[in-house]
Order: sequence, then structure tokens, then C-alpha cells
Amino acid sequence: MTAQGPLSAKQIALFDQWWQAANYLSVAQIYLLDNPLLRDPLKLEHVKPRLLGHFGTTPGLTLLYLHLNRIIKERQKSILFIAGPGHGAPGVVAATYLEGTYSEYFPEVSQDIEGVGRLVKQFSFPGGIPSHVAATTPGSIHEGGELGYSLSHAYGAVLDNPDLVVACVVGDGEAETGPLATSWHSNKFLDPRNDGAVLPILHLNGYKIANPTVLARIPEEELLALFRGYGYDPVIVAGDDRDTVHQLMAKAMDTCFDKIAEIQKRARSENSADRPTWPMIIMRTPKGWTGPKEVDGQRCEGYWRSHQVPLTDLEKPGHLKILEDWMRSYKPETLFDENGRLHAEIAALAPEGTLRMSDNPHGNGGQLRRPLRMPDIETHALAVSSPGAVLAESTRILGAWLRDVMRMNLESRNFRVLSPDENNSNRLNDVLEVTNRAWTAETYAYDDHLAPDGLVMEILSEHTIQGWLEGYLLTGRHGFFSCYEAFVHLVDSMVNQHAKWIKSAKEVQWRRPIASLNYLLTSHVWRQDHNGFSHQDPGFMDHVVNKKADIARVYLPPDANTLLYVAKHCLESWDRINVIVAGKQPEHQWLDIDAAIAHCSQGIGIWQWASNDKGFEPDLVIASAGDVPTVEALAAVQLLREHTPDLKVRFVNVVDLMTLQSPSEHPHGLDDVTFDNLFTKDKPVLFAFHGYPQLVHRLIYRRSNRANFHVHGFREEGTTTTPFDMTVRNNLDRYHIVLNAVRRVPALSGHAAYVTQMINDKLVEHKRYIAQYGEDMPEILNWKWQGSRG
Amino acid sequence: MTAQGPLSAKQIALFDQWWQAANYLSVAQIYLLDNPLLRDPLKLEHVKPRLLGHFGTTPGLTLLYLHLNRIIKERQKSILFIAGPGHGAPGVVAATYLEGTYSEYFPEVSQDIEGVGRLVKQFSFPGGIPSHVAATTPGSIHEGGELGYSLSHAYGAVLDNPDLVVACVVGDGEAETGPLATSWHSNKFLDPRNDGAVLPILHLNGYKIANPTVLARIPEEELLALFRGYGYDPVIVAGDDRDTVHQLMAKAMDTCFDKIAEIQKRARSENSADRPTWPMIIMRTPKGWTGPKEVDGQRCEGYWRSHQVPLTDLEKPGHLKILEDWMRSYKPETLFDENGRLHAEIAALAPEGTLRMSDNPHGNGGQLRRPLRMPDIETHALAVSSPGAVLAESTRILGAWLRDVMRMNLESRNFRVLSPDENNSNRLNDVLEVTNRAWTAETYAYDDHLAPDGLVMEILSEHTIQGWLEGYLLTGRHGFFSCYEAFVHLVDSMVNQHAKWIKSAKEVQWRRPIASLNYLLTSHVWRQDHNGFSHQDPGFMDHVVNKKADIARVYLPPDANTLLYVAKHCLESWDRINVIVAGKQPEHQWLDIDAAIAHCSQGIGIWQWASNDKGFEPDLVIASAGDVPTVEALAAVQLLREHTPDLKVRFVNVVDLMTLQSPSEHPHGLDDVTFDNLFTKDKPVLFAFHGYPQLVHRLIYRRSNRANFHVHGFREEGTTTTPFDMTVRNNLDRYHIVLNAVRRVPALSGHAAYVTQMINDKLVEHKRYIAQYGEDMPEILNWKWQGSRG
Repeated sequence: MTAQGPLSAKQIALFDQWWQAANYLSVAQIYLLDNPLLRDPLKLEHVKPRLLGHFGTTPGLTLLYLHLNRIIKERQKSILFIAGPGHGAPGVVAATYLEGTYSEYFPEVSQDIEGVGRLVKQFSFPGGIPSHVAATTPGSIHEGGELGYSLSHAYGAVLDNPDLVVACVVGDGEAETGPLATSWHSNKFLDPRNDGAVLPILHLNGYKIANPTVLARIPEEELLALFRGYGYDPVIVAGDDRDTVHQLMAKAMDTCFDKIAEIQKRARSENSADRPTWPMIIMRTPKGWTGPKEVDGQRCEGYWRSHQVPLTDLEKPGHLKILEDWMRSYKPETLFDENGRLHAEIAALAPEGTLRMSDNPHGNGGQLRRPLRMPDIETHALAVSSPGAVLAESTRILGAWLRDVMRMNLESRNFRVLSPDENNSNRLNDVLEVTNRAWTAETYAYDDHLAPDGLVMEILSEHTIQGWLEGYLLTGRHGFFSCYEAFVHLVDSMVNQHAKWIKSAKEVQWRRPIASLNYLLTSHVWRQDHNGFSHQDPGFMDHVVNKKADIARVYLPPDANTLLYVAKHCLESWDRINVIVAGKQPEHQWLDIDAAIAHCSQGIGIWQWASNDKGFEPDLVIASAGDVPTVEALAAVQLLREHTPDLKVRFVNVVDLMTLQSPSEHPHGLDDVTFDNLFTKDKPVLFAFHGYPQLVHRLIYRRSNRANFHVHGFREEGTTTTPFDMTVRNNLDRYHIVLNAVRRVPALSGHAAYVTQMINDKLVEHKRYIAQYGEDMPEILNWKWQGSRG
Repeated sequence: MTAQGPLSAKQIALFDQWWQAANYLSVAQIYLLDNPLLRDPLKLEHVKPRLLGHFGTTPGLTLLYLHLNRIIKERQKSILFIAGPGHGAPGVVAATYLEGTYSEYFPEVSQDIEGVGRLVKQFSFPGGIPSHVAATTPGSIHEGGELGYSLSHAYGAVLDNPDLVVACVVGDGEAETGPLATSWHSNKFLDPRNDGAVLPILHLNGYKIANPTVLARIPEEELLALFRGYGYDPVIVAGDDRDTVHQLMAKAMDTCFDKIAEIQKRARSENSADRPTWPMIIMRTPKGWTGPKEVDGQRCEGYWRSHQVPLTDLEKPGHLKILEDWMRSYKPETLFDENGRLHAEIAALAPEGTLRMSDNPHGNGGQLRRPLRMPDIETHALAVSSPGAVLAESTRILGAWLRDVMRMNLESRNFRVLSPDENNSNRLNDVLEVTNRAWTAETYAYDDHLAPDGLVMEILSEHTIQGWLEGYLLTGRHGFFSCYEAFVHLVDSMVNQHAKWIKSAKEVQWRRPIASLNYLLTSHVWRQDHNGFSHQDPGFMDHVVNKKADIARVYLPPDANTLLYVAKHCLESWDRINVIVAGKQPEHQWLDIDAAIAHCSQGIGIWQWASNDKGFEPDLVIASAGDVPTVEALAAVQLLREHTPDLKVRFVNVVDLMTLQSPSEHPHGLDDVTFDNLFTKDKPVLFAFHGYPQLVHRLIYRRSNRANFHVHGFREEGTTTTPFDMTVRNNLDRYHIVLNAVRRVPALSGHAAYVTQMINDKLVEHKRYIAQYGEDMPEILNWKWQGSRG
């Protein structure tokens, strides 16, 4: 007795055939090298030598794909499919093949017996396709290799896409991860008028690799309470009777899509952005459903043993038979015609054209990407009459420019500024003059710039911010992520995965470039003196530099005008991960806008106004990268000029860190001749660096003068103290740089004793002063660059 | 009209006085340089020049501390306090001072007017104490600078501590982070018989730095559903009337501790480990409670403006008056006696001795740490008759040894083996012969090794695993964390914070060392060929190497016996972060146990049996670090020996990566003479490395032969392919090493054309073979080392 519901018995039979076809092709992908439709009796030689892939989650994914197709056909809805359990690639690939898209994108994998053969063989095979949903999978914006991000990707994708629904399958394994557990709260940031909808589907198949899942082993009452507490209205679909589950799933889908339509209709017709209770589905079906029930007497279907390849060791007596019986249980001969093509009646269950989830334009978002309109940076330039003449908060200047970028793109709603509760702390407040913070939870009258349609996004979860932004970029839009430098490490692993996605996508012919992932790391190591050691870590640069050279960029603009240049450049770029490090505190300003443009367009250069080598070979090069290091390096130059005026010092500033690397390693790398012209071949170079010194050593290890580079940077010495004391504790301060100069430059040996004594006295005085007064000495606080331009 | 409850009116008045004293001292710490008890009218010169610290969360923390003290006094319970909002250090420090502990640990901060002066001045002052709860705070195991880990730390601390309760305050900001959001599920892993209890207290003060919190802006119905869904029984304490809140809080505490007592009693008397519904408290009180209601006409108390320093710019007219009025509202003159000591009647509210939360022995867990009993590694050694004679899964051998470590410490229950659902996948199954996986959620008859008292912990959340383990180590126990190499990046930021804690704790006289944080990274980059690019990333080593040299260690044992040595060494160590990278697949075994001990005790050395330089200066050094690189490097040696038998090749293997660094940079660094003796001063060194090549370059940048090091490692080229093809794609394979040798060694120029042709043919053959058969060529699969022991 079948459950009542929208499907007729005939429909159920047909639906089941499509499902069987998808499952059959999934198993075939995992196992077969040849004989793809089992037209011959199965032999060992038809089986791949290495069996890879994940079957456990696959039948669930194909079932959902099928039922979403019904919704699309009936309602002409634009739906994108995110498979959190991306390990179930065989099922997703099978589905995209059955609806024809796969053959359109990869013509050699055609809709015939040869194409099926190629489809089956290529899976997890050298030179073929990966074992997870990947950039090669049509319609996918999500790999699902590392788990935790499916739902935040889904929410990112529907922002400002009012007509889009993302059906997001969350595995119950993935649901245990922290990033996933908090991303359910994304519903408090979704505007039912301007954004689309996410339909989360918790795929409760009960097991991970070798353990049950937590959510599958709590009482249903707790399970429902949890998701109601997260703000959803869950519909449970449970069972292992195929016909029943088809009917229940069809009913659940109708319920959910009716509800989504109703919510959106009300919100849009009444212009009401009250937070609705969005629907979700909890699907409780067996892991490895339709697979072997037992293998060698051990439970398989509905158990963790079906997680990957349920049946291995096919040389073992009986195993090949189990596999053949299993595969033939799908009755492939009834599903595919003589030519190996899916029977037309079954194939007709899929939608057509770009309504196919595998061909949804948002799934290859680069093709929808339009450049941002941006004001010239000149219009926001800070007036700098001479180097060091003014102090300014560089990120505040940037904030005013970002406000205008926001304003110029308000109408197209394709730009978001994101941060983990730090937008204003990072001095980007001006953006809130033209938009608000997205917020659909409760508000009070005295709340500050909260609105459902705000384009600034803040939640205290770097993971969620990053996930939203990735989803937004992958569907063709633009964004800007500002973050405390120390805590951006929270998303190290997400950055890895995004970098891998970009690299892989570039190798797929039909993928279009997406906007770059842009970070502003402010509240950085040198000005987190007040928050202490836990907030002091510049290592994210090191992490990003490990990525592929054509993807990773690191910029250290020393002041506001250079920051403007860099930010604009990053927002214009694509397929990159750009890291900008710049402080938010009042700092010395060095370059007017023309000088900033000239300097940044090279990425590195001599600051003549701070040099006295007059085109000759200097005795010493002092270099800097980063705003605080630049102040200390210039103060050191000034001290040297005062006490050893004959010394020829050249000053080099680095904005684009990758210029230091050899051109063979990075496209931005300076050629060796230019590098040697800047840094000399054999003179000491004292390099004041924002991060860990080893990063510079590593970048320059192929350069001829590398042995003479002495890098001052963060040595992991921090606490709650004054800003200048932070530099002293790490030997990055002007005094330690001068002490090092005296040690390294032979020409200074005559002055060594005197200068050393003077500097050591200064350091003692510094320690004494801050211990008494708790702030830096007046000569530090009021220090000004004495030189003039040119 | 006060609410009914356990407190008399007189008690409430007295409780409030203690609370006022703690709040007063908190404000004084943030603001005052002098005049600590306001015995003189407040002047600008009494105020610190830089105002740092977080007031917003502080009154909530002090309120909870006070009420927990009542429970301790009445019930003689051992309670540890974890302040998730560690930013509220002023309150926690004030509380530990008021109960006398602070003065016992820091005698100069005495219980008199001078001591109060020092207490107040030192806060967030250079040379003083950090602005967050830190290693300097008595009774703390949790910094709370980076947010997300309070609850997993709390659960880690109570594991195997049946008499301990951790009262864990979770800020509603922190509650938005992913790691925190999933750590509520830790209750499914707690055994009410053998473990203690956690009392989570959600501090719902409504705001973060500049935004409301999500959980404060959902209907109470959703809030309660959420926590019931997480498996808790929440008690709400809400209000802003002090007397009422004292009464409600006392009642709530009684309810919760009664319930905990009842749960534990039943579980222990009936030996029942059914998962109970543990109590929790939701405290909804104003942010910055008792602070200024408004400043400059802007809402402050009960709003985000009170998050940090509610009132700044004290030079501004009226501000100093507001501060003085605010501070005097606590009536310090009624709280402290003439000598500046808290009145005895108020002080008597605190418990005594080690019952004080600030003196709970678990809060300085190193003092409880006992070494693990461990079997000799010889008893588990793998027989290796000659190098390369056998294949074995190294981590499986380790698993058998770990099983015996587990067995020998079963009774003391002070060792846990943890992993994110990968224990068996990582071949540590044998451990399950003597214990089980911890699990108190529902079980079925066919479940595999699940039990409430299991000492193996698995949840699909690296964050939770790491948090549990940190809490366990910080309270004096031992652990071993095995993880997929690529995904350990998920905890990069937690590793940073733990390294910072260790460094800071070492500088605190009374802190005792804790057991090291030990990682086994297996399922590593070279053998994740089947899972594809998303699972391939060796960058965690780079990350850890940035930590302080006396904390960070990286080991790359090339086979099973060396792995045994390294694992034992790590489990014997303290105050370190040890990273072991070793594969789980069948691999060649090189050293018998004696050779392994000899080799590992140096950390690096020449393998004479693979070298033919016979004590002379070689033409070429081939070096390796890591198991797969060692195979390829030795295969390259063999190819060279076959085709260029006259070439003198020395083979060096590195187990302890830090030996490469200069001794000035790392205590394990080889001295320069020994280094040069191994690697020569000027001969080419081909270094086959497990990770990114740049890491080796960075470690050796001070070495004299650095320019001749050519490192083969991971170049970020990966996909789903064969194991050997992974090495080929990254030029780490034997063929590319030989090609490089031909290029680098002048003596080979005569053979260059021939060898190059042969090798290129091999590479073409390889590509062709795997594209056809999907597995590596027989000559790769069956390769064996031909040499014999030297």
C-alpha cells in the first residue's frame, strides 16, 4: 500500500526507473573499466584495478536530484544543486549525464554506448575525473571534499539572486563540523524580497566512515527541536520502501516549494522582510541504499561499511557474482536502448536547457560576472604635501572609497562587504552611509544600521563569512572581506580549498573566471598591542604564498594612497586570492596619489627622498614591507643620517611582496638584474618586514645577494603593551635596525662604539618610560620624518 | 518585592557587596593608574593614558563567579571556571584577588592598599598582565582571546575527572562561531559515571563589538528549542534588577547542581550510562551592567557601546565626573577596610584553599600530570632483515604499540586517542582491542566498539577533537591526535593559540608543564591519490614551524620502526607541539629497531648502506625526509648506481626536520660543521621532501651549501590518480630526481644525453600505462631496493 501523494503509480514506476539508471551508472563508474552496460557477462577484466569512490551517500543524492527535477519541470524554477557530500560524485555525474548536459560540455562522453563507456572509465581514473564533485562537474559550485561549507556556500549563492533556489544537501557527517553547525543561522541574514531561497536537506543516512553520526542517534524530538531552534520548519521523509519514499519525497518537495513561493510572494507583495520560518527536509534513508545488504556475512547496506566501495577484493570467490547481481538488479537493459541511450520516456523526466540544474547559469557564475563600477582613486586621494607630513587612518580612507564603490553598484546589487563583526572597528564605517548591515532577526528602535536588504554582512564566524563570500563569488559577484589578521587563520583550510577550486576551474575549458577573493587584514600584529599575544599573528601571508603562483598575491601598502591603488587593483582582478595587509590606526602618510600610483604600478621601488646614495652604489640598503615596518625603517634612516651623515643609504619599499620571488617562481617576480639593481649584489640589506622574517628569506632564496639580507620581523614575542614596545620586543624598531646597521656596515666601524652606546641608552630609557607611564615616549609618539621630497 | 528563593534578604545584600567589590576592582583595573580605592577625589592624573580592556561582559562573569562560590561553599564541590569571554579578564582577576589566591601566587599584589594599587595598575599595562584571561590568571586553562573553544575545553577537562564540574561561560558572541556551535554536542560523548560534568552558561548579554548577537534576537521559543535540541535542559535567568537576579541565579544554580548530583548519583549507583539531559543556564542580563547608562547622549549600558571601555576621552568635559560617579556608585569605602582589604564578612563568601576556583588543582593541570607507562618499542619492532626487505603499514605497527600504551594506563584513565572519524582509516584499530569509542548517544546491537567509557574519541569535527584534547592536556593528562594531513589546517588557528598559551605559561613561575600536543598526520599528500586534490596539502608543517622554536617539532619517520621511536619520544615530552607525518599504506621498511634507534636519536644521518662514497667526499648528496620521498630518493640512487656506477652518491635521511635549521634558530639545529660534514660545502644536494620545497629552503637559509640544495616536493599539482603519478606530477619521483642529478653533477655530463633519453622514455611509458590500466607500472609496484646493508 503506497502512501498518498502527488505521484501516480505510473509516475512512481517511471521515477524509479530514472533513479535506477542514475544508481546503475554510479556503481558502473566506481567499478567498471569496460562492459559499461553489462551487455556481456561480467568478468574480472571488466573491473578497474583500483576501486575508488563513495557509494554510501550516492543513492540519496540521485533520489533528491530526481525529485528536484520534478519541481523544476512543474514550476519552471531556477534551482542549483549543492551536494555537501561531494564524495557522492558518481551520483551527481550520473545525473548530469542522464540529462544530457555532461555530453554537451564534454562531447566525447556522448549519449551512446561509447560515451557511457568513457563516462564509466574516466571516473577516478588517471587522466579522468576526480572522485568528488569538482570544477569539472557541470552545475557545481561546491566540491564537498573538505566538509563544512555546503550551507554557507548555498546562502552566499542566493544572496541578491531573488529567483534562485539552492537545494543544499547536508550530510549528517558534515553536520557535525563546526562551520556547518553555525551556518544554519544564515537564515537570519536572508532578505526574502531581494534574496533567493535555500532549501536545506539533511541527508540522515546515519553513518560516517566508521561511526554512526550524532544527529542520527538522538531522539526525533531532539532532532526536530534543534532545527526549529535554528529557525526552520523541518519536514521528515523517512523509509526504505522505494515507492513510499518516492511518494513522501514528492509530497515533501511540494510542501517546501509551496512554502517558499508563499513566503516570497508575501514578502515581495507586501514588501515585508520579517524573518520567515523557511522549510527544510530531513531525509532518513539507508546509507548505501540499493547496494549489497551483506558482504562476507557483514552488514553493508544501511551501515558504515557502504560508505566508500561496499564490495572489494573481487578476486575473492563469490564477490564478482555479488557485484554482477547487484548491478543487474538495476535492470540496465530496461533503461538504456540498443545504442546505450536512456529511454526517451525516462529521459523526459529531466528539464531542458538552462533549467537543468547542471546547466544553471549560476553554476558557472563567471559567465554572469560583470565588472564593478569604481570611482577613480584620485577622487579619494589623501593630500600628502610631503612624506610624513600627515597622519591618517589608511583603512578609513579606503572605507570612503569603498562606500562609493558600493554606491555605484547599489542598483546591480553585486557587491558585498563582509567581516566578522569588525566592519566599523576596521574603519570601514563609511560604507554604512549608503547601505546597512544585513539582518532579518529581531531589531530594536535603537539598532544601528541593521536592515534586511543591507549589503554589509557581519556574523561572528569567519567560517560563515568566508563561505558566504565564496558562494557569492562563485555565482558571479564581487566581495571584500576585512578581518583581524590573527584570526583569519580560522579559514586557512577554506582558503586552501578555494585555491584548489580556482586552479582546477582554470583547467576546465567551459568554466569562466570569477572575481578574486579579496582580504583586507587589518587590526594587524603591530597594532594589536592592546589586545595582547592572542591577537598577534602575521602568518596568513606564509600560508597563502604556498598556493599556486598564478593565484596568490600579497600586498603591503605602506599608507593610504597606496592602499587605494591596491584595493582597486584587487577588485578589478579575477581568479586570485589577494591578501592586503594595512593598519587602521593613525599612521604616517608618505606618498601623494601620483607617487602612490607610480610606486604601486611597479610594486617595489627606491624612495629617492629617503635615500642619499644619489644613484651611486650605496653602503647599505634599508628596505621595508608593511606600514609599521616602513615607519621604523625610515626612523632608522633618519637616525643614521643624523649620526653617520656620510653613510650612503638606499631606501627600498615593497608593496607587492611577490616581486621578491624569482620570476621563475612567480609571475610578479622581478628579473634578477632589476632585483640586483635595487638591492645591490653584495651590500648589506636590512629588511623591516611585517611578518615572520623567514618568509622573506624563503622568497629571495634564489637571489644573488641573499646572504646579506637581514630581516627584522615578528619573532613571536608579544603581549599587552604599547605599539612601539611591540616592535622593540621583536627587534623591528628603529633602534635595533640601527644597531644592526652598525654591525653590518664596515664603513661604520669607526662610529660603532658611540652609536651602540647611544642606542642602548635609548632602549633602556624606553623600557623605563613605558613601565612608568604606560605609553610610548614623546620622541616616539611625536616622531616626524625630517627629510623632504626629492 | 523580591523573588522567592534560597537567599535571605541579608544574604542578598552581602552577595551584592561582593559583586560590587569585584565590579569596582574591574573598573579600577581598566581606568586607574593610581588612587585605586578613590580615597582622594578622582583626577585626570590618576587615569591611565591608554584605556584598554573589556567591561561589557565583566559584571556577568563576576556575578556567576560569586554564585558558583556559594555552591562550592555549601556543597564542597570541585568547580573549575572557564570564561569563554576571556576579554572579561578584569572581572576574573578581581574575583581571584578577592578570594586571596592572586596574592598567594603574586605576593607583591598583596591584600592591602599597596597591593590593590599594583593590581589595578598592572592590568593591560606594559610589564603587567594581558587584557584577557591568560596563563597568568590563577585557575584558568582558557584564554578566551580567540573565540570558539570554551565549551570543548570544558568537556576535555572533565573527561576522566568524575568529581569535577566545569562551569563554562559561553558568550553569545562566541556562540556564533562554528567550533562553539558544534561543541554543544559534546554531551553525547560524556560518561556520567567516569567523567565529571559541564555546566554551560550562555551569557546572553545581547551584543558583540558593534552588532547584536543572533541568539539574543530570536524568539525565546526558538532559543529554548535550540538548546533542547542540543540535548540540554535550559534554565533561564533574566533581568536587570540586581536583587531579583541574585535570587533567580541562586535558585538556578541550586536547580542545576541538584540535577547534576542526581544524574551522577543514579548513573554511578545503577552503573547506568544512559545519556542524561544535562542542565544549563541561559543568563540574559545587560551588557556593561552597572556601567554608565548613557555617554554623550548615546546608549551605553545594555548596548554594544559598553563592549570595551564604555567611557573614553576623559579630558572631555564631564567625562571624569561620569567615571568618578560610576566608580563611587559601587561604594568602595563600604567594601574595603582602612588597609584596603575586603571586609571579612564579604570575603567569607569565598571558599577556602583549593576549593577556590582560582586554586583548583585542575587549573594548573601540569601539577597533576603523571608520566604514561609505555612498553619498550623493541617489543613492537618490525623485523627488517635488510633495507627494503619487507612492506608494512607503518601506522598499523604504531597502532599495536598504542594499544599497549592504552592498556598499561587503562586504570589511571589518563590517556586518550582522538581522531575525526579516522581512527581505523588511519590503521590504529588495534587500540579498540582494549577500549572503545566514547559514545553515549543511542546505540544499536550491531554497533562497532561504541561505549560510554571508551577512551577513543571520534567526532567529525577537528575543532572539537582539538578542543577536547587541549582541555584534557591542560588538566594534566595525555593524548594522541591522528588526522588527515590536509584537513589538520582546520585547526591552524587553535594551534596558534595553544602555542601562545604554552609560551606564556612557561613564563609563569607557578605553572607546571603539561603533556605535549601530539599529532600524527597520516593519509598524507602522497597517498591521497584516491581522494584527489582537495585531500592533498602538506602545509601544516610550514604553519607549525612558525611557532617558537622551543615549542615546535616536526618528525618525518621514513618507516615503522622510526615511527615507533618518534611516537614514544613525543609521548614522553612536555610543553611542545609535535607533528609526526607518516603514511598508512603498505610501504618499504628500511631500518631494524636498533638502526632506527640509532638514526632517530640523531634525528638525521647518512644511510651508509645506500651510499657509495665510502667516507670520501661524494659527487652528489641525495637526501630525503618523509616516507614516500625516501622511497623515490632510494629508487633514484639505485637508477644512478645502475647507469652511472662510478658516481659517488651519499644518502642522507632526515627524521627530525628541525635539525636542518641553524642552532641559533632552533635547539635541535645541527651545528654548522656537522651539517657541512653531512651535506658537504659545495656539492649538489637533491633533497626529496614530503612538503612544499620552500620549507627546506627556508630552514637551511643560513647554511653554507644552501645554493646547491635542489628540493623536490609538493608543487601543488594533484588530482585523483595513482600514487606514483602523484610524485611524477610534482617532480618528486625517481625519474625526475635522476634527471636533476644529470643536470647538476658535472661528472655526469658524459652520460647526460643517454640517461636523459632513457628517463624521458620511462616518463612517457608511465603516462601511457596509467592512462590505459589505471594503476602504476609493474616496475614501480614491484620495485625493490637492490643494495644490501653496508
